[in-house]
Order: sequence, then structure tokens, then C-alpha cells
Amino acid sequence: MKVVLDSEEEIASPSLAGVIGANRALFEADALAILDGPMHASGRPTVVFGNRGLTQATLTVYGPKSPAHSGHYGNYVPNPAMRLAALLASMKSDDGRVRIPGYYDGVKLTDEDRAVLARTGDDEPALLKRLGIASPDKVGGNLQEALQYPSLNVRGLAAAAVGAKAGNIIPSEAVAELDLRTTPETDGRRLFELVRRHIEAQGYHLVDSTPTDADRARYEKLASFKLGPVQAAERVPMDSPVGRWAATALTSRDVAASGDPVRIRMMGGTVPTDVLVDALHLAFVLIPTVNSDNNQHSHDENLRIGNFVSGTRTIRSLLTTPFGSATSQRAP
Amino acid sequence: MKVVLDSEEEIASPSLAGVIGANRALFEADALAILDGPMHASGRPTVVFGNRGLTQATLTVYGPKSPAHSGHYGNYVPNPAMRLAALLASMKSDDGRVRIPGYYDGVKLTDEDRAVLARTGDDEPALLKRLGIASPDKVGGNLQEALQYPSLNVRGLAAAAVGAKAGNIIPSEAVAELDLRTTPETDGRRLFELVRRHIEAQGYHLVDSTPTDADRARYEKLASFKLGPVQAAERVPMDSPVGRWAATALTSRDVAASGDPVRIRMMGGTVPTDVLVDALHLAFVLIPTVNSDNNQHSHDENLRIGNFVSGTRTIRSLLTTPFGSATSQRAP
Repeated sequence: MKVVLDSEEEIASPSLAGVIGANRALFEADALAILDGPMHASGRPTVVFGNRGLTQATLTVYGPKSPAHSGHYGNYVPNPAMRLAALLASMKSDDGRVRIPGYYDGVKLTDEDRAVLARTGDDEPALLKRLGIASPDKVGGNLQEALQYPSLNVRGLAAAAVGAKAGNIIPSEAVAELDLRTTPETDGRRLFELVRRHIEAQGYHLVDSTPTDADRARYEKLASFKLGPVQAAERVPMDSPVGRWAATALTSRDVAASGDPVRIRMMGGTVPTDVLVDALHLAFVLIPTVNSDNNQHSHDENLRIGNFVSGTRTIRSLLTTPFGSATSQRAP
Repeated sequence: MKVVLDSEEEIASPSLAGVIGANRALFEADALAILDGPMHASGRPTVVFGNRGLTQATLTVYGPKSPAHSGHYGNYVPNPAMRLAALLASMKSDDGRVRIPGYYDGVKLTDEDRAVLARTGDDEPALLKRLGIASPDKVGGNLQEALQYPSLNVRGLAAAAVGAKAGNIIPSEAVAELDLRTTPETDGRRLFELVRRHIEAQGYHLVDSTPTDADRARYEKLASFKLGPVQAAERVPMDSPVGRWAATALTSRDVAASGDPVRIRMMGGTVPTDVLVDALHLAFVLIPTVNSDNNQHSHDENLRIGNFVSGTRTIRSLLTTPFGSATSQRAP
């Protein structure tokens, strides 16, 4: 059993590939067990067979050279915040589905896939209550199905200031930070390119940096759209030997106290599985240990004490379940 | 000649009405000459016969109770930044015109009005170049005409963070600060009400403060829309005695060096004319002295030394031109 501790997961693991490359022999193995991501909301032991990828992008719409007085120029100087709003609104329909043609291309769910997704057993009414929303976007028929498709999310928005610092101006620019969660079928660079072409199709001239005076004189609509970090999605079949090994370990007596294992086809979040798989070409499985209501990436991020205990038990069981013996078993 | 110095103009003159009320007799006068706002861009002496009003409002669209992980919930939790974008986009068309029915009601420009507006003599190509935009919104046929209509401006936009502080989350709320510039025909509270009803017509339930759990469970789309300070527009006929007096003063030898006076029907910005007119019921005229490219309400706000000099000359001429004698003259 070889253990890799990556302390840079939250910044897309920039050193991991280099460390593996420089120590190739140390990483020789039969399979990968990745302890990342949240457990199923039920708290039952969880085995995950893939994760979505992540592509970040920054969209900036340019307005006047300097913020313009909203009285003397309101109705005259086009407002970049309003234009950014129209641009973003053109990308998705009211039900949360991306309207850009081709965005979902390649994702195909069979009846068996849908049955597996439905079997995950999410308590969606309880989830909606915890999240504080009356109803979800309509990308999939249920939570698990929604996560099998790429997403297009606005993770931040800014133009001038709000609250006490707001001024009576037409802002000089408006920015939207986007993240695109991808699947193995929907490459992040391809989706970025689809969005880029959609922006151009709305009449925008895209610049690489702050527009010049010549750009400003020539183009009615100016924006920039920059590609950020790209992490690929990874997914493996749910009947793999490493999956069966994990299922055996998670049905051991002191782990199974929390219930039968939940099998998740592909989780919505992103972990650097791609870096490991690209370098090592190994089958993998994800075995999360932390509570799903941990406010990840937000205020009051937390770990339940109970999950610290059950996580310790899970890891002990993984360390004591022989890999070879388990591979001949069928998954539950 | 009585001089009122208001040091609170940029915060909507909260003390002015009280001071006038408490010292009514001191304010007895024939007419008001208000030295506020920017001169015409040509630098020629400027007489202005009205100003737009200002109504501020804050629109907040609510998302999940806490920011949600954009991987685990992307495609499931509706994004309030995207919803705010769609809501703002629904308010205006691509050419900058407000699409909410009734927004422009009451504004009627006669052929004579249009002729007066066209005669203002704006160098729009130079203005567009200075502002750094290729073409203006299409609310009016020219700058002066655009300013005779109410505006609907996004003065600030925010959801979560952009740049280095951006996280991979679905924000919990998104905020747009709006300012509505109004005309004497378009009361700010009426326009606010039109926008409010438009928001409700898009399916939003409006709350007065942070939504409760019960609100969140019941309403798919939650927002708040709050009215801020309201300042009324004021406009007087262009052939008034005080207008003729101002024109005489501005054609005196050392002021006229900058050219013949420009007569502006109604400027786009807002000054507290309404407070003075409501309290004193006097005819008025605005006589701006500062340069129009002064980056008002923005970075590097400035006053040209030349405008300090010409402004001093203008004020001397106003102080030495008898009001009575001028009122019998015709305006130039």
C-alpha cells in the first residue's frame, strides 16, 4: 500500500505530475484508491467511479474608457454590466440548461445508467431544504443525472461597486468568472471554444487585453474571454476489480455500521484524478470520507467528528482488505 | 444677491430643505441661479434650463442559503448571478431602450424641442472618441435628445468574488445597484413601481429582507427590490426672465471670449434643484462653470485651471449684471 498526500488539491495540484514523473518507480501499483470528495448525503459508505473535470474562464465586457457619469451619459453610453447580463442570459435558458448548440454533445445515458443513477437513493426534498431552494435546475431528472452533464456556472460577477461604495456611474467594465464542469465526453477546451464562438455570434469582438483606442473606435461590442486552468474528467466502469475491492472493504463489520455502500457513477466535483491517471495509467476508485454538508469552498467549511471516526475505520478496512482476494468477488 | 453654499450636493443635499425652512426670510428672492453641473463640452458659456431627477434602487436575487460547491451542485442549484443577468437583460433591448411598457410615457418632444436640442451643437464624434465607444445607445437621435428621456442604469453588480478571490461556488446572492434618471414627466416612484411589477412578472416573489426558510421552500424565484433616495427632475421654459438675465451676463465681454452661450434644454445629471424649487417656488436657471471632461463621480475627478479662471469671470459677470434691466431683453 503506497500513500500519496497532496496538499495542493484545492489549487489544482500543480506539483503532483512533476513529483510522479521524478519518482516513477515509487508509484508502481495495481490500482488507485483516491480519498477525496464528500460522502453520499446519507452518510453511508460511498464508492465513486469518476469525477467531472473543471475548466475556468474569465469573461470581461468593456464599456467606456473610464466610468462615465450616469446622469450626463445615461441613455447614451452603453452599459457593460447590462451587456454582460444580456450575454450571460443568452447562454442558458430559464430552466438552467445551456442553450449553446453542441454543449451537451457526446453525453449518452443508457436505461441501465439511469437506473444506476436513480438507485443512488438521494433524499432530494431534504437536500433542497438544506440548500434553501424550492426546486432545482432541470438539466437532469434527478441530482445524479444532472451531474453526468457538463455545467456552465457563474462563480463570480463584478462591475464597479455595490452597497455604500456604489457611485452614480456607468461602469467601465463588467466581469464574470465562469466554471465549466466537464465529463469525459465533453472536453473543457472544446466547450470553452463553443462559448467563445457563441460570444462572437452575439456581435462581440474579442480582444486579448485592454482594448486600444483603435479597437474602441472600430468595434461596437468589445469583450475578452480568457481560458483558465483545465482539469479533465475521468470515469471508469462500475464493475472494475478495484471497485469490487473497495466494496468489500466498505462492507467490513465496523464500516458497514453506517449502512450498505452507495455506488456513485460520477460525482459532480473535480479532484486531480486526471493527473494520476495520465501519469500512471491505472484503474481507480474514489472513496470519500467527509460529510457532504461540509460547506466545501464556502464559509464554515467543516468536518463532522463522526466522519473523522468513520473515515479512520474506512481507511483501516482499506489497509487490511487484500486487493487480490477481493478482485474475484462480484460487486454488491 | 444671496449666496447659498451646499457642501452636501454629492449626498443628495439632506440638510438643504431644513436650512431653508428654518431661515425662510433670508431666502426671499426673484429667481435662482444654480452654479452646478458641467459646462457644454465646447467650453462655451452654458445656460441650462433643467436637470433630470435621480431614483436609486437595489435589486438582490437570492440563491442557495450558503454558497454551494459548483461541482457537486452545478446543474442542480439555480445560480442567482445567472438569474440576475436574465432579469436585467429582460429590462432593456440591445439598443439601450427600456422594454418595460410605460417607462417613457409622458415624454413628448415637439419639432421645436428637437430643433433646440439639435442646435446645442455637440461634437459627438469627438465625444465618442473621448468616452472610448464606437456608437451610443439608441434612445434619442442625438446626445441631447437621449437625455430628455428617463434612463435605467446598472451602476454596480456583484456576486461572490472575481479575480484571485473567486471560488468554485454557486453564489448565495447577486446584487445590482440601479439608478433611474427621471424627467419632470416620469416620476421616480412610478418608474420604480413599473420595474418592480416587471420583476414580479418574471416570476419573482419579492421579500423585504433575507428570505426565511418558509420563503425558500415556497418560492422558486426570490428577490428583493428596494427603493433608495429619490430626487425629482425640474425643468423651466427656455425664455424665462432669469434665463435672459443669465444670457446677458454670459455675453459680457470677458466671458464671451469663450464663444456664444450654449442653451441646454435639460441636462442629464441631477442636482438638488427640486429641494430649492419645492421650498422657494422660484424660477431658476443652471449656470455650470466646470469642464465637462472632469471625470465626475470617477477616478481622477478634476477641474481645469482654465475653468477656474473662466468660472471666476462668469461669477463676476453674474454679480454685476442687474437682474431687472436684463429681464426686458430677448434671449439671444
